[in-house]
Amino acid sequence: MKYGIVAFPSKQLQDFANSYRKRYDSHYAKITPHITLKAGVTEVEDSQIESISEYVKEICHQFSPLKIHVTKVSSFAPVNNAIYLKVEPTEELLNLHNALHTERFGGKAEYKFVPHITIAQDMSSGEHDDIYGQLRMTKVDFSEVINRIHLLYQLEDGSWTVYETYRLTGEV
Amino acid sequence: MKYGIVAFPSKQLQDFANSYRKRYDSHYAKITPHITLKAGVTEVEDSQIESISEYVKEICHQFSPLKIHVTKVSSFAPVNNAIYLKVEPTEELLNLHNALHTERFGGKAEYKFVPHITIAQDMSSGEHDDIYGQLRMTKVDFSEVINRIHLLYQLEDGSWTVYETYRLTGEV
Repeated sequence: MKYGIVAFPSKQLQDFANSYRKRYDSHYAKITPHITLKAGVTEVEDSQIESISEYVKEICHQFSPLKIHVTKVSSFAPVNNAIYLKVEPTEELLNLHNALHTERFGGKAEYKFVPHITIAQDMSSGEHDDIYGQLRMTKVDFSEVINRIHLLYQLEDGSWTVYETYRLTGEV
Repeated sequence: MKYGIVAFPSKQLQDFANSYRKRYDSHYAKITPHITLKAGVTEVEDSQIESISEYVKEICHQFSPLKIHVTKVSSFAPVNNAIYLKVEPTEELLNLHNALHTERFGGKAEYKFVPHITIAQDMSSGEHDDIYGQLRMTKVDFSEVINRIHLLYQLEDGSWTVYETYRLTGEV
């Protein structure tokens, strides 16, 4: 199975993201709005999920709740025609991301970590430019605290189920 | 927000359920296959979710992992044109269900508890009879252990996000 690690923002922010995702995001029905902390690319045996869970639990004991600030609509184009809500990178977010990408845990991420909530993807360049043109000036300003993260696994149809939730209970 | 409490079965059983749900279940994209332990009918303030979570946590400290046995395809018709995978009722399942429906926790459930995984719903009677006719003889036999349950909340678009996971860590 493939697994991934995400943080779900507040219901308010999720509802805001879904107001765009329902029209523009091909993954809309596969998972609710989220910030990806470890991308779901690695294939593991189903039986390994429990040891991965133990490892994530250990990491979450070291991290305290994260303040996040979502500030604007941005885009990964031309690398990727995906539009997202930008989550300002903080040292705390980066440290958590790094802890989930140590040698012991699959090694470095494929891409530089750009914290975000995707709201549109799998568009042609023309569609992307049109939609991004409409959305880029949207006023976005959400500040909240993320106090837990989730380990998910992917079903054969591409949808994601939560396996376990971890509170960020550390002091740092 | 509306909240609910579910158990997700194994990936294998979820994939099996989804092979029907993708064609027949109107809620297919809103949540992955699950056993409902407390239906998502009650509306609460967003701020109440944390105290509900504390309460569920307390309950889960009292229950040990549950053995479940999924034995056949069944239907709620004529009460409701929904088709489901039958989860054999056990004392353990019933006790957990009761613990989630005490006076302190919203009171009795609206319906008698029939543990199940829905695979088809929102059909006309004709459709129901046709599909149930095809599926009722399907051989179904899954035995597994549920060692955790999840508290979910519903977004405005009807989809469900996991708020928290609880291990069943009790001795009984």
